[in-house]
Amino acid sequence: MRTELIKGSVRGLKAYVPGEQPEGQKVVKLNTNENPYPPSPQVVQALQQFDADTLRKYPNPSSDAVRARLAELHGCGVENVFVGNGSDEVLALCTRAFVEDSGSIGFFDPSYSLYPVLAAIRDVGTCPVELDGTFQWQMPAPDLCSLFFLTNPNAPTSMRFPKADVEAFCETFKGVVLVDEAYVDFASEHCMDLALKYQNVLTLRTLSKSYSLAALRVGYVVGAAPLIEALMKVKDSYNLDGVAQALALAALNDVAHMRANAERIIASRQGLSAALTEFGFDVSPSETNFLWVRPPAAITAQDLFDKLRECGILVRYFPGPKTGQHVRITIGDENEVAALLSAVGSILKGDVI
Amino acid sequence: MRTELIKGSVRGLKAYVPGEQPEGQKVVKLNTNENPYPPSPQVVQALQQFDADTLRKYPNPSSDAVRARLAELHGCGVENVFVGNGSDEVLALCTRAFVEDSGSIGFFDPSYSLYPVLAAIRDVGTCPVELDGTFQWQMPAPDLCSLFFLTNPNAPTSMRFPKADVEAFCETFKGVVLVDEAYVDFASEHCMDLALKYQNVLTLRTLSKSYSLAALRVGYVVGAAPLIEALMKVKDSYNLDGVAQALALAALNDVAHMRANAERIIASRQGLSAALTEFGFDVSPSETNFLWVRPPAAITAQDLFDKLRECGILVRYFPGPKTGQHVRITIGDENEVAALLSAVGSILKGDVI
Repeated sequence: MRTELIKGSVRGLKAYVPGEQPEGQKVVKLNTNENPYPPSPQVVQALQQFDADTLRKYPNPSSDAVRARLAELHGCGVENVFVGNGSDEVLALCTRAFVEDSGSIGFFDPSYSLYPVLAAIRDVGTCPVELDGTFQWQMPAPDLCSLFFLTNPNAPTSMRFPKADVEAFCETFKGVVLVDEAYVDFASEHCMDLALKYQNVLTLRTLSKSYSLAALRVGYVVGAAPLIEALMKVKDSYNLDGVAQALALAALNDVAHMRANAERIIASRQGLSAALTEFGFDVSPSETNFLWVRPPAAITAQDLFDKLRECGILVRYFPGPKTGQHVRITIGDENEVAALLSAVGSILKGDVI
Repeated sequence: MRTELIKGSVRGLKAYVPGEQPEGQKVVKLNTNENPYPPSPQVVQALQQFDADTLRKYPNPSSDAVRARLAELHGCGVENVFVGNGSDEVLALCTRAFVEDSGSIGFFDPSYSLYPVLAAIRDVGTCPVELDGTFQWQMPAPDLCSLFFLTNPNAPTSMRFPKADVEAFCETFKGVVLVDEAYVDFASEHCMDLALKYQNVLTLRTLSKSYSLAALRVGYVVGAAPLIEALMKVKDSYNLDGVAQALALAALNDVAHMRANAERIIASRQGLSAALTEFGFDVSPSETNFLWVRPPAAITAQDLFDKLRECGILVRYFPGPKTGQHVRITIGDENEVAALLSAVGSILKGDVI
């Protein structure tokens, strides 16, 4: 293989590593922020009633029925909505539409670990903004970079940045702000209105978490029409398949089901948070479907991660100076939460070697 | 809107225009090379039996079950196969993995009209290689560009380039050759083995046409492991949804169904080709599921396109000096072929004004 066949920046690239997806094994899976409850019965019905003969025809290229429903939900025009093959596709398209080759991409550190990988794929620089030891809001400079990925609530830290701070940043920032609201349905406040107020702001949502549709790969972004139009130009011709479009529409027609699941997860989160605090954990105030916790001094985060794994419980551990003292735990269903707490109790008592 | 929010090259970009997809109207749709016959009953069964509860979990990030089946079908390793969200995604990924910012992308002119759009999205130069008036093979120079998209059989011209010529080109070309075999299941020869023989060759296939799955967005590429690995690095984390993976696998487990449909289309193609030749059309020797035809002198291609549209029949017309004398007609089912021939007869007799 002549290495020059492959683009130089790609040769050196380290791909994003998704959370482990064990197949067939019996594990309590609290590592990828999946929803423990099934999607709406309307989604199941849409799946069962999908007309297989339509599979032979190309789908609507811009997911217009889904866009129309989203415009209705968010009180905006269809021209303000873009639907992607997962919110990951939207993020990648933003790196192509809003960043010159000489530009750069900003994000908080720590935040979603995909962002620096997307910048590397796009072969542009990164401008990480370091959060302090308590992961609080830091105001990025107005001319820091071309595109800023602002996760709110933030991952993996689970905390929400105050909306007033986010808005103050959007007002002064010279580039495009993408507010990544992947977890916002579990939070007390959202920033959707900022995307409709400011010409340089996009608000990103996903159906993966709150709508229990991670397998379906549907995300969407709302913002000013010229930004949406730019994304349309750089997307693949038919970026969302016909089945995903039909099922996404069904899910968005049953917001009540999503809300009920989200409330159930929020209630579990309060219980789990209190129980782990009792165990001596430092639990960040979560507005997501996961907890960001620092275990008590008796055990390191890495050790806790390893021992939970031995107990058949997968959580997520991000090594490194900023994140290496914490683990991220997805809020599971009632049984999974109980299994986690039981395992944590055994581990802290020294019963798991 | 401050235009500088959007990347300069994107501001000037003209998006790819897919063939019209009328919804709800009663038309004979022969404009986007869709298969007139339904997908395998195994696909329908996989759809009906899909476990909706798995939708809440992330899908396999690299479509490994589909890759394993493809490796089996093509007698290669899993590391030689990449599965994309439609072959369009694979093409776009190739522009990112195999072309430096200073590089360029080559293709025949005329060929698939998406290629120059992909080069514009990637913001690199293009090196079109002009086919002659009869659309025959032309050998591109060995150092013409970084990546050459070689559609074989070619679209919209329907003709197959000789494999010996393709191989001679692959042997001498310094960059990556992507042989786009979107239509190869309707042809008498394929180039899959070249992808397994040469380190710089990829062979691209799609399930959209021969497998009757355009709505599903599944394409794949076979080639040397380092090229496949580069594509893996630059793809979205979960590029293919769980339903598409399950249905693609079902389709690939029933190659016989695909072959039977392809043979039926090939038989219709012979009939339609003969009938249009009788009407005075110049019909290119097709090895695809469409015909590339020049109407008799009495009517221009544009006029024929417009009048067929008035008759409720959609075909495809590409204006321009190279393509503007022809129309592209997808091979429909028996009724659609009859409707087309009846309309052509009326138009040529002057019954359609």
